[in-house]
Amino acid sequence: MKQDPSPSQTTEQFTDPIVPLDTISEHLASGDNEAVKADLVLLHPGELAFILESSAPEIRQRLWSLIPAELEGDILPSLHEKVRSSIINTMEDSAVVAAATMMETNDLAEVIEDLSDNLSEFVLNSLDDDHRLRLEANMAYADGTAGRLMTTDVISVRADVTLAVVLRYLRRYPSLPKYTDNLMVTNEQGIFLGTISVGDAVTGNPEDTVEKAMHLLADWITADGSEQQVAEKFERRDLISLAVVDDDKKLLGRITVDEAINIIRTQADHSILASAGLNKEEDLFAPVIPSVLRRGLWLGINLVTVFLAAWVIGRFEEALDKIVALAVLMPIVASMGGIAGGQTLTLTIRAISLGQISSTNLRWLTNKELAVGLVNGIGWSIVVALVTYFWFQQLGIALIIAAAMTLNLVAAALSGVAIPVILDRLGIDPAISGAVVLTTVTDIIGFLSFLGLATLFLL
Amino acid sequence: MKQDPSPSQTTEQFTDPIVPLDTISEHLASGDNEAVKADLVLLHPGELAFILESSAPEIRQRLWSLIPAELEGDILPSLHEKVRSSIINTMEDSAVVAAATMMETNDLAEVIEDLSDNLSEFVLNSLDDDHRLRLEANMAYADGTAGRLMTTDVISVRADVTLAVVLRYLRRYPSLPKYTDNLMVTNEQGIFLGTISVGDAVTGNPEDTVEKAMHLLADWITADGSEQQVAEKFERRDLISLAVVDDDKKLLGRITVDEAINIIRTQADHSILASAGLNKEEDLFAPVIPSVLRRGLWLGINLVTVFLAAWVIGRFEEALDKIVALAVLMPIVASMGGIAGGQTLTLTIRAISLGQISSTNLRWLTNKELAVGLVNGIGWSIVVALVTYFWFQQLGIALIIAAAMTLNLVAAALSGVAIPVILDRLGIDPAISGAVVLTTVTDIIGFLSFLGLATLFLL
Repeated sequence: MKQDPSPSQTTEQFTDPIVPLDTISEHLASGDNEAVKADLVLLHPGELAFILESSAPEIRQRLWSLIPAELEGDILPSLHEKVRSSIINTMEDSAVVAAATMMETNDLAEVIEDLSDNLSEFVLNSLDDDHRLRLEANMAYADGTAGRLMTTDVISVRADVTLAVVLRYLRRYPSLPKYTDNLMVTNEQGIFLGTISVGDAVTGNPEDTVEKAMHLLADWITADGSEQQVAEKFERRDLISLAVVDDDKKLLGRITVDEAINIIRTQADHSILASAGLNKEEDLFAPVIPSVLRRGLWLGINLVTVFLAAWVIGRFEEALDKIVALAVLMPIVASMGGIAGGQTLTLTIRAISLGQISSTNLRWLTNKELAVGLVNGIGWSIVVALVTYFWFQQLGIALIIAAAMTLNLVAAALSGVAIPVILDRLGIDPAISGAVVLTTVTDIIGFLSFLGLATLFLL
Repeated sequence: MKQDPSPSQTTEQFTDPIVPLDTISEHLASGDNEAVKADLVLLHPGELAFILESSAPEIRQRLWSLIPAELEGDILPSLHEKVRSSIINTMEDSAVVAAATMMETNDLAEVIEDLSDNLSEFVLNSLDDDHRLRLEANMAYADGTAGRLMTTDVISVRADVTLAVVLRYLRRYPSLPKYTDNLMVTNEQGIFLGTISVGDAVTGNPEDTVEKAMHLLADWITADGSEQQVAEKFERRDLISLAVVDDDKKLLGRITVDEAINIIRTQADHSILASAGLNKEEDLFAPVIPSVLRRGLWLGINLVTVFLAAWVIGRFEEALDKIVALAVLMPIVASMGGIAGGQTLTLTIRAISLGQISSTNLRWLTNKELAVGLVNGIGWSIVVALVTYFWFQQLGIALIIAAAMTLNLVAAALSGVAIPVILDRLGIDPAISGAVVLTTVTDIIGFLSFLGLATLFLL
């Protein structure tokens, strides 16, 4: 490279290396495997994982065969579980083993759980002793804990050495492990004392001890801490890496910010997909049969609840038989309750998942949501009553739909707070089941109040 | 500190500094302001922001008054917009100015947009020249672009100097700027050439030039790049910091990983909240009146769509009048269509927001979702037909509900893919409006097919 490359050369050299999905699709469609290979070589493993996840099964298969084998170990851990399984199922055992031996232990711990018993044993036996021991250390911790997420690829230094010694020590590394913003400081027994940033080690006085330059209040987490706690610490404390310690504060390893981003993304996916009865690992490009089975269950559950609502309607056959306007209008009451309750439910589930609900603010929140429900209920009931009156010219029906809707919106507000809080205390994930329970409640109360009031006052 | 602290001392010293929300709530409830202050002092600004966001308005006010003024500039940028406004509205102008002058320019650029014209001018005039110029550089870029997110607090080095010179240069910093994993390498004209990690600068041969040790393929983004692109680069390429350049590749600044986490979190919030017609800045602990207004609009939009469905039902008054079972069963057909379509819609919206939909896979995806809808439609229609037959003992109604439900589930699958893709191409955010449009379609097709077929064959 020249000393002073001209801007044009620079532009050439640093063309944005992200290749759009459409370009790869075109090259695939034209059957030009060499062009596809040239595209793929420009991509980072995380981007290759994204492209694979965005492809239909046959395309995914073709792409995988075009990816250089030495990248497979980097790509597999970045894939969603379902996509990864579908790819591993098509790989030779020897290729899986080759990929596995290249993985970081925390990645391998995740991948190995999906393998068949035979294959996972084969992989374990192929690892060198050090790699296997570190893998077993990871796997000793449950999925979803800090211990499972940590890497043992960590640089620790003693508190009593000088910065000059630390720098000499660092120079022995060909390159520092990824995300090494801080060195972990320990005592002779390996007890975690704090951190010192690489920057501070460089800029500090070489004669100073680590003890003098280190950050004493550095955060840490015990290996049995939850994923949720890990993500919160990274997000709220702006961390790059976090020390993982055992119950005696002995340093075990560290967790890096890429894991935290992964947790945040996965939790967000869960919140978005769960409310539609979908698994967070749901693969939009999965084949038809597994998709039918996974989604069918949810339709079945909803079928039960909607039959329950139909049964409630069935109790009022007489009223429906005499006043046909009731059948026309009843979906309005039920639907508005579902929409209003859904708003409160969504906010409450999010607050629960963020840990924002405490015993003190729950009462305030319930009262506030009740007030919102009541005001919106009265407001929109007046509109509905007016439209109904002009449509059917019957004051009785107009008054009854207004009363039923106000009632249902207040019930919806109360349910929107109460249902997720109760489900959460019962240990049931409100993101999955909250919406079904809520719409069952708002449908039943909607139909019951509207048809019930009509039976009482209009028959 | 002693050379070898015993484990018990260490435990004392490093007690987990995160104070649970409930503890602070208790101290607030007992009116013990000193205890609250002692709690708050242990928390990171990001955690204080979280506690403020989790509190009802009066509590939020009390907490804010107990937070030391010197932390206000760190906390305000971490708050959601609505919460921040509610706090700034209660602050003295001079306190706002004091907090503003302590902020990073990219944070200040975000905060200053919410201030009144008077106050923002007051803030601008209070900044020193350097700070104001850097702020204006940020504000020159639109909200949601890389330029707005970048900080100018970046260390750049020339390619032709040696690593020894770089280390001497670094030692002049009291401490390196946060998230300095890489130094940006430029030529004489300030053109971005690549990066060199601080670690490599330390571990490399001091006699080598930066040019020899630098990472040539380092990624960058132009200042007009979108937030979405920034987040994708950080997530897929595992970055800590990313160079921001102008159209001539001149280095302007850098974006750090905390901004990327913030974007990912904000986008996830948007996806979760938008489907319930809520703004991503929605504050669960906002007072009643603003909440009523923000949510009422959504209820109004839904009211129009549900009246449309009611109007469709009204076209079949004759059928409903003669066969009351139709009124009882019709919500089943509409509801199952809404649930099945909602699953496809959720997956499609997520795929669009991730950029996974391309022209080539759209046809495959549509066919697959149609197949899933058809198989699930036929399967559950048989169940519904059987239940209907045992309930009402009328074969005609059982056959008609099965046909209508199959039809509606196929329509739902098609709509679940088509509606968000079309909305997206029209420039309308499918996360906000997709669900309303979809349920309008599934309600209308559900009622129309069931009541229409019944009118044709049973009257």
